[in-house]
Amino acid sequence: MSEIRTGIPVTTDPRARAAALDAADALRPVRDRFTLPEGVVYLDGNSLGALPAHVPGRIADVIGRQWGELGIRSWTESGWWQAPERIGDRIAPLVGAGPGQIVVGDSTSVNVFKAVVGAVRLAHSGAGAHSGGGAGGGRTEIIVDATTFPTDGYIAASAAKLTGCTPVPVDPADPAAFRAALGPRTAAVLLNHTDYRSGRLHDLPALTAAARAAGALTVWDLCHSAGALPVGLDAHGVDFAVGCTYKYLNGGPGAPAFLYVAERHQAAFDSPLPGWNSHAEPFAMDPEYTAVAGIRRGRVGTPDILSMLALEAALEVWDGVGIEAVRAKSLALTDFFLECVAAYAGLDGRPLELLTPERHEERGSQIALGCAGSAEAVMERLIARGVVGDLRRPDVLRFGFTPLYTGFADVERAAAVLAEVLKEVAAGTPGEPGRR
Amino acid sequence: MSEIRTGIPVTTDPRARAAALDAADALRPVRDRFTLPEGVVYLDGNSLGALPAHVPGRIADVIGRQWGELGIRSWTESGWWQAPERIGDRIAPLVGAGPGQIVVGDSTSVNVFKAVVGAVRLAHSGAGAHSGGGAGGGRTEIIVDATTFPTDGYIAASAAKLTGCTPVPVDPADPAAFRAALGPRTAAVLLNHTDYRSGRLHDLPALTAAARAAGALTVWDLCHSAGALPVGLDAHGVDFAVGCTYKYLNGGPGAPAFLYVAERHQAAFDSPLPGWNSHAEPFAMDPEYTAVAGIRRGRVGTPDILSMLALEAALEVWDGVGIEAVRAKSLALTDFFLECVAAYAGLDGRPLELLTPERHEERGSQIALGCAGSAEAVMERLIARGVVGDLRRPDVLRFGFTPLYTGFADVERAAAVLAEVLKEVAAGTPGEPGRR
Repeated sequence: MSEIRTGIPVTTDPRARAAALDAADALRPVRDRFTLPEGVVYLDGNSLGALPAHVPGRIADVIGRQWGELGIRSWTESGWWQAPERIGDRIAPLVGAGPGQIVVGDSTSVNVFKAVVGAVRLAHSGAGAHSGGGAGGGRTEIIVDATTFPTDGYIAASAAKLTGCTPVPVDPADPAAFRAALGPRTAAVLLNHTDYRSGRLHDLPALTAAARAAGALTVWDLCHSAGALPVGLDAHGVDFAVGCTYKYLNGGPGAPAFLYVAERHQAAFDSPLPGWNSHAEPFAMDPEYTAVAGIRRGRVGTPDILSMLALEAALEVWDGVGIEAVRAKSLALTDFFLECVAAYAGLDGRPLELLTPERHEERGSQIALGCAGSAEAVMERLIARGVVGDLRRPDVLRFGFTPLYTGFADVERAAAVLAEVLKEVAAGTPGEPGRR
Repeated sequence: MSEIRTGIPVTTDPRARAAALDAADALRPVRDRFTLPEGVVYLDGNSLGALPAHVPGRIADVIGRQWGELGIRSWTESGWWQAPERIGDRIAPLVGAGPGQIVVGDSTSVNVFKAVVGAVRLAHSGAGAHSGGGAGGGRTEIIVDATTFPTDGYIAASAAKLTGCTPVPVDPADPAAFRAALGPRTAAVLLNHTDYRSGRLHDLPALTAAARAAGALTVWDLCHSAGALPVGLDAHGVDFAVGCTYKYLNGGPGAPAFLYVAERHQAAFDSPLPGWNSHAEPFAMDPEYTAVAGIRRGRVGTPDILSMLALEAALEVWDGVGIEAVRAKSLALTDFFLECVAAYAGLDGRPLELLTPERHEERGSQIALGCAGSAEAVMERLIARGVVGDLRRPDVLRFGFTPLYTGFADVERAAAVLAEVLKEVAAGTPGEPGRR
């Protein structure tokens, strides 16, 4: 672990180091924009982000005034109708997208379906084909991240079945295998930017370029990247992307997902879920479907306003915050966590094993620790003692680090409690009752 | 209009009649369960239902305590995970479904897609074939309501394209044409129970029976029926149904829709949107998809908790309220509205023309009035004077009647204001400025 560095001189006291790191943290004031549960170190923002402090008041207004008083008039007067694109444009700079390319709505799974079918159709039609390869019906394979969050695989298999394609699982952590799998039969590629389990960050620029060179279209799942690190969708020529807003974007439980369709593909994007919201003239109630121009084409039915406006309010915590600063702090937090865990509990595989890559360029904003044989008991005790991470069965402890509200003292405390809990579990000490 | 009857003796004074009708209305106390905008007659519950009074407090708790304090633990401790089925079971009695057949989530459009593809696959596989006809790949037609809310048509066309079928438009108001269109090629039938524009109620039992006799599966869109009138899904042998919860179920703007899959089809239901939420073991993160048994199979991704729990709270206004009583009052309200409009403004086509059938068995809970040449100006003035209906361009005035919170005095006032506004518009009087 000797190569892990935070830029702050190593002393013998991690607590003093934490205090110095917090004092030097330019993002520290952003923490006050959240309502954090008292006495808890919340390291589960990679599953459900914390509550931004002004969301309750905003939603009280949305419900009481916009819905209760204005009623149907709010579709125009309160800007409900434009919310999916407006909020998309608010997310756009966080993932490196120019305006007019992101729309918010539906679940991540449903957006994966739109994107994968849309990508396959572009590959088949040739409208979206890259110069590196031919297009047409010969492209019958969809490469799918073999380590993907399962839904993506299920949806990709369904999209494949419905479009006459075959899913081909490939591990994006093995670029050579990925390149070998690409070819003139590849229609589309569905990959995760950051692996949900290990926290591994895949090489989006290189993998996108390889797919493009083979004439295939890329669909990137940004669930564990959006709001955690720079993505550079436009810069790297990504074709489609989807992402979640309830993790590092703090939109609330089950908040609507987003869909990115690169501007160059929008005119030919043929969504498998055409709804009245994506019609060129939605209020004409035209029995014939004419797709609207632009990113609104990614919409389907009536947008889910309460959840969507909670997300919009939540995004205000980003005012004045750049994703590069967030990334720098994220790496410092995860480095420091690894230092503390190594110092307090050891990271040599007895019992903790580091599953997240140490190299910064391969690390998302989460640390996954293998904890064979006792992960469930360990996580249960951690949560009971106010350190909230989560468990991926059978034996993975996941800790998500959200730079907007997580501090270095939190990290030190989490590592210290983890070390105590590991000793207790090893000694067979009964757990204390849950605190809340 | 002479055959319209409310059961209250006709007097010369509609205001006195309204007072008597309100005094005799057993549902009158339910109105107090809503927060209604002051001074407004809200006849747009067929577009966005009014705000139930306890929703703001409930959502404040969901956001502040369940999300803000308990965080991720609320998936189990606050019952978030089970919400889609739990709320489905709360809706079930309102549409005549036994428990375990309705799941809440996604938009109506997305649920139409699941249901239509699911129905076609059942028809092709033979697993869901009715005794009246053969199954298999020869069933390549999807009959679609020719007067449908457009999204249903767009989604049906997409489902048809993806499953190798052809959409066949038929008007369900013409049962002979419907029967003639049915045949051994019919895989599935997508119909609206109540027409969104005219308010016409179609004959669900007879049309379902005809489809069944032809071996086709039915998908009913209940958007303008659910919460307005009895549907009898189980009793009439409907196969699939979808519905909206933000109209007569008052779930809030864009509240999640619901999907009904008859129990007998659940084991063979092959959703085109298989997500981790519909996996037999969702937390096993199994790369292979194994569909769960039961109605949870209709789920896809993470449910939208804020909107869903607002809906759940909203459904409490139904405590102790039967859908039959709602239907009786709905017919009395629409009858009385027609009486008042006929008395005050005339319904002889100059300028108002009744588009909704007068026969109770063909009428939903909405009155549509053609108002050629001046509908837009009339609706604008109505809204400015506190009578909120809506406009379907170019010339239809829609008025929705929600028995839970609409009274007979409201109806009389709406008709009186409508008559005044019609006179003003005919005389070219400038409209008054909007009141709010």
